[in-house]
Formats: sequence, C-alpha cells, structure tokens
Amino acid sequence: MPRIAVGVEYDGLGLSGWQSQRDLPTVQDSVERALSRVADAPLSVVGAGRTDAGVHARAQVAHFDTEAGRTARGWVLGANSTLPAGIALRWATEVPEHFHARYSALSRSYRYVILNRGTRPGLAAGRVAFVYRPLDLAPMQEAGRVLLGEHDFSAFRASECQAKSPVRRLLDLRLKRVGEFVCLEVRANAFLQHMVRNIAGMLISIGQGDHAPAWAAEVLASRDRRANAATAPAGGLYFWAVQYPPGFGLPDDSDMMRGPSGCPGDLMG
Amino acid sequence: MPRIAVGVEYDGLGLSGWQSQRDLPTVQDSVERALSRVADAPLSVVGAGRTDAGVHARAQVAHFDTEAGRTARGWVLGANSTLPAGIALRWATEVPEHFHARYSALSRSYRYVILNRGTRPGLAAGRVAFVYRPLDLAPMQEAGRVLLGEHDFSAFRASECQAKSPVRRLLDLRLKRVGEFVCLEVRANAFLQHMVRNIAGMLISIGQGDHAPAWAAEVLASRDRRANAATAPAGGLYFWAVQYPPGFGLPDDSDMMRGPSGCPGDLMG
Repeated sequence: MPRIAVGVEYDGLGLSGWQSQRDLPTVQDSVERALSRVADAPLSVVGAGRTDAGVHARAQVAHFDTEAGRTARGWVLGANSTLPAGIALRWATEVPEHFHARYSALSRSYRYVILNRGTRPGLAAGRVAFVYRPLDLAPMQEAGRVLLGEHDFSAFRASECQAKSPVRRLLDLRLKRVGEFVCLEVRANAFLQHMVRNIAGMLISIGQGDHAPAWAAEVLASRDRRANAATAPAGGLYFWAVQYPPGFGLPDDSDMMRGPSGCPGDLMG
Repeated sequence: MPRIAVGVEYDGLGLSGWQSQRDLPTVQDSVERALSRVADAPLSVVGAGRTDAGVHARAQVAHFDTEAGRTARGWVLGANSTLPAGIALRWATEVPEHFHARYSALSRSYRYVILNRGTRPGLAAGRVAFVYRPLDLAPMQEAGRVLLGEHDFSAFRASECQAKSPVRRLLDLRLKRVGEFVCLEVRANAFLQHMVRNIAGMLISIGQGDHAPAWAAEVLASRDRRANAATAPAGGLYFWAVQYPPGFGLPDDSDMMRGPSGCPGDLMG
C-alpha cells in the first residue's frame, strides 16, 4: 500500500499535544480525521515525535498508508480545508514503504523561546516562556556545552517518560538573544520526554544567577531529576525540524520559515 | 490631577478592537477595568489610535488622569495581574498635564505581515495575512513610492471613516521578505481608518501581478475607494509604535522588541 509523508505545522495553545488521547483535542486526531476525509477511508498517522500539551510545531513529520490515489496538492489542500485554524499541512510526498516518520529520523531539532523583560507578554502569551530576571547568556552557554555529546540524561527526563534508555546524543546547542527574546536551539538523535524543557529550566536557573555554570555537570552526573531546576513551561517550545536521510527525498524544511535570526523569538521583532 | 501614560501590547485575535463598544470585548475596556482596580477608583483612558477588531498592537500608547499615587511599577504589575493573557502593559510613566496620547503624537508606525507560501498558516493563524500567489517585491516597492508624501488618501479610506480630512502625510514605506513572510512597514503623521490595510491590499494586488505598478498613481488620483483593491485582512496588522516629541520623556519603544529583521514576520523564522 502506498505510503505518504506529510509536514505538519501547529499552534499547541489549547491543544492536548500530538498523541491521540481519549476525549482530548489532539493534533494527531485532527490530522487523521482530515486526511481520512480526503482519502474517503479511515487512516492512521505515525508522527516523528510526540509533543506535549501546549507545545508548538513548525515541522512535525508524519506518515500514513493509503490506497486512495490523490496528488500531493490534493492531500495538502484537502486536509487544510477541514483542519482547525491552528493546524496546517505544509507538504505531502509519497515515500518508500520502508520510510517511517519516527524510526527513519536521524535527528530532531527543537527551539525554546523565552521573553526576557520586566513585564509579561501580551502579544506572545502562550507562545513564549516569560522570565523577568535578566538572563546572562555567557554562563548559560558554558553550561550548555557540558551537555553536548552522548550522556545519560536521566536528570532531564520526566518521571512518566517511557523510553527504554535514558541515553541520548545531544548534537548541537545554541543560545542567542534577539531583542527582548532569548532563543535556545537544540538538536539530538532523539529526546526524552520533557528533555528540552528541563534543559531550558536548568539554563534559565543558571542565566538568572541561581547557580554557577559548573552546576550543569553536577545535575547531569546526578542522573536524578530532583537535582535539576523546574521544568520550563510548554508554551515556549517549538518542534522545529526532523532530519532524515536525503535518499527519502523529503522537502528540506530547515530554511523554509527561517528569518535572518533563525529564531521564533523574532515573533514581534 | 496627575496624568500617567502607559504602553500597551495586545493580541487582537478574538477582541473587538481598541475602542469601547457596548457589549463587545475591547482592549480599552480591559485596560480601564484593570487600571481602575489598581487606582481603587474609576478612570478612563485615551489611546493614541483606534485599532479595528483583530488588529494587534506592539506599542499602543494611552493616557489617564488619576489622584491615586502609585509607582510606575505599581501601575504596570498591578494592571498586568488582572488583564487577560492577550493584553499587557509594558510601561507606565507620569507625563505633563498637556500630554495627550492622541494629539501629542508626531507620527505612528504600523507593520503589515503577509505569509506568502502555497499553504495556509497553522502556527500564525490570525496573526498574519495569507497570500498563496508569489509576491514580487520590486513592483510593490515601485508602487509604494507613489504614496509617499502628503496626499488625499480617500481611495484608501473606509466608508465609515470619521476623519474630517482625507489628507495624510506618508513618511515612510518599506517592504522586505523574511523567509516565507513579506513585511510592510509604514509611518505617517496619522492614518485614516483601514488606510494601512488598503495600502496592503493594493500592494498585494500589484505584487501578484493583477496590476502594473503604475496603477498605484491611478488609484491615488481617483480618490475613490471603489477604484482600489480589496482591504487586506485585520490579522496581519500591527500597531507598531507612536512617536512623540522627546521632551515628554516617554520610553523609546522603537527597538524594544525588534529582532534583526525588524519584522514581526520573523514569527517562526
């Protein structure tokens, strides 16, 4: 049966995350309902990553199997005509049957956006985290470097995380200030549940001066979630991109929505 | 009686604009209610400009008179603790009694943000306009130059506009592309109702190739709203800044939330 991959963008505010849950509004349910309508037959989608309630996505990737012969344009425009305003397909493309949105992914990128000023957001409420104490980026950057590479990230893992292994390889971590915003960009082979939000929580704590940069190594070595800072809120998190082997021929989303700063903190900038 | 000026940021989605209206949720009502609570006495605010339903503001300015002795911080944090999530005060400062948020303004800046790609927005729904046909910026820029300076802008004015004169002085008009977004920046001594959205509508029409750039001069000379293109949607419009004489000592908002591109279209960039 032909397999189709789609790129999905969504505003997580008011939604109960990606994964289907009984009686809660999830992105997966909305996308399955819209695509089933286009296919005129029920179908199921598999996403590259599960996002929590309130988390946004610029480029979630999902796949599904269908006998319905539709063009890429037919899938995208058909689904977008019935999806809620805060969810949109960006593209669709046929992929080989051995492509899997989750297992074929080489790595994932997330961004975490913080509004760092004295007054809470109005325009970007629910779409950024808010930190009123000034953040010093230099110690945050120093702490971030400690996390690069392959580690046991148990101290950055939600208690309900279901992954078999706590080991992940953090491939990239960058911080930048854009006007009143601070933007954290991370890429890893995969992420544990709440891993980005717990990295953000630790870096915010260090950036506000609650801890020295050296604390990052202690937290990492503890392998104990209780040794870390509070989990940063969901609204600042964006599932930014998924990297696949080029052979699958998926659209390269990496620069599609990128402004000069490459940071969603440019929101009002 | 002491006069206080405040900077107000808001997400216009779901709100019925700035100006109080019976039984409709407006920004002015919310701000008056929140400030009256801080003052422990009823008060009224006067805004620098009226924004329509669905229009956003990064830096609306308003003033009010009060005998309540509160610090700037007391006004801002007190009001923000009861304002809805989509409205926030950014600053407050005492001003001379002859300061007037509307009449003291030298000029106003607006930005209009267009998502220009093949598929509708998910993340930025209601916060950008959506144009699926590719926009060519060169003819838009050529057309924009025709509007600079003092003109009768009747062709860019809503039929219900209550201004006495249709003459306005357009001081600046810039266009830039930021990733998938096109951002229009305009500054004028003052704007007629729907003037920015009608300028945007005309430029979109020219950018899609429906009209040559020379059409802009015809539209302007017609002084007839019916000669112009459709009004561009409210969701793409941001009341960006108000310029006052420096003597009033108001905070300079012009760079506060500015990212490298200076365009809210950096939203997901």
